[in-house]
Amino acid sequence: MTELKALLFDTFGTVVDWRGSLIADFTQWAQGKNVMGDWVALVDAWRGAYKPSMDAVRKNPERGFLTLDELQRQSIEPLAASLGIKGLTAKDYDYLTSGWHRLDPWPDSVPGLTRLKTKFIIGPLSNGNVGLLVDLAKHSGLPWDVIMSAELFRHYKPDPETYLGSAKLLGLAPAQVMLVAAHNDDLAAAQKVGLKTCFVPRVTEYGPHQVHDFKADGDWDYVVRDIVDLAGQLGC
Amino acid sequence: MTELKALLFDTFGTVVDWRGSLIADFTQWAQGKNVMGDWVALVDAWRGAYKPSMDAVRKNPERGFLTLDELQRQSIEPLAASLGIKGLTAKDYDYLTSGWHRLDPWPDSVPGLTRLKTKFIIGPLSNGNVGLLVDLAKHSGLPWDVIMSAELFRHYKPDPETYLGSAKLLGLAPAQVMLVAAHNDDLAAAQKVGLKTCFVPRVTEYGPHQVHDFKADGDWDYVVRDIVDLAGQLGC
Repeated sequence: MTELKALLFDTFGTVVDWRGSLIADFTQWAQGKNVMGDWVALVDAWRGAYKPSMDAVRKNPERGFLTLDELQRQSIEPLAASLGIKGLTAKDYDYLTSGWHRLDPWPDSVPGLTRLKTKFIIGPLSNGNVGLLVDLAKHSGLPWDVIMSAELFRHYKPDPETYLGSAKLLGLAPAQVMLVAAHNDDLAAAQKVGLKTCFVPRVTEYGPHQVHDFKADGDWDYVVRDIVDLAGQLGC
Repeated sequence: MTELKALLFDTFGTVVDWRGSLIADFTQWAQGKNVMGDWVALVDAWRGAYKPSMDAVRKNPERGFLTLDELQRQSIEPLAASLGIKGLTAKDYDYLTSGWHRLDPWPDSVPGLTRLKTKFIIGPLSNGNVGLLVDLAKHSGLPWDVIMSAELFRHYKPDPETYLGSAKLLGLAPAQVMLVAAHNDDLAAAQKVGLKTCFVPRVTEYGPHQVHDFKADGDWDYVVRDIVDLAGQLGC
């Protein structure tokens, strides 16, 4: 009964390179529009606002659940202002927010997932909303079998509802599902409620600002070099 | 804003041949077990219990939402008894119920969906639960981008929550989503809440018991011969 059946992947940072993709996307867009701005600083500040914005949803349930697209759209406008980026319209901010739908995968992601899909159910388990994750898969050719999103559970990771809710929707016991992530805190929360765990290091995720997750710091079931290595270790 | 972005497919009957698949599956299984029974009659009676069992969920919300797997498991045991099928264990009934996870596609389904996926988001929109639909896709090679299931909305089709909830999760307006179905009543309910509609005839779905849905009987946006024909009409 505890045979591994499904692999769920943290997505931002683990499967796709959000920082490199957003910086490249915004730099190119700004050149076309002749808008000046420190896009590297904006992307880093934006990511800094990511966890606090989800915490606010968690702590204020009376506001209702807001999707990641909604949270990102709310946070970018004041961040751009604080960085002296001027003259952007509402449509421009919508475009920048939709950058999270156009992130590129790490080089091993698509080859590794394609091999894993032959033997396992594969899907994201991400704080991104469903539409974002579907667009991302179309953009990058991620061959998911199913889309698991915080939006389905109206809870953000690391709330237990996300991990347990995903197993339940698949009709599986928690131990038949493994979370694959580049973030030790995500794995700790999944392990606590009975999922199997796999750490994959992404040591350039935060660029020069990376301060943690250089290596596994828990007792995870698998520690792999990358997703292709995981496919090899699982016999795919 | 009303450019078509996503195609959602009714699944049982429209994409997969539930009747032919279940009859073949049960007949082969019974030969291996040396169990006697009229499997054709059982499959037809079981399908007869399908809509009433979902209506019971709709009319008795205090019971909570039961998945299609749960409803089918409840209904098969008394139906088998009424047909004089004897000696089956709980595990046998579990196996027969899981037959809905092993249905085969109509011959045009996979080639048509593969072409449509190049241009559109494609997914089931089915009363089957998420785990069932994922297993079905793995079994038959259905190349879905996303799984839309009654289970996500805790409402069965034709309740409007299913059609509108699917569009909302995709971040799309209802008119950017088209339901493809072999059942006129499903299309009528989708059209009523603003989705586009496509009828595909499956005139052998119910075998000799087919009494309706031989042809389109509403003002649908598309009427096609099969899913490959739809791909051609949509320029895929």
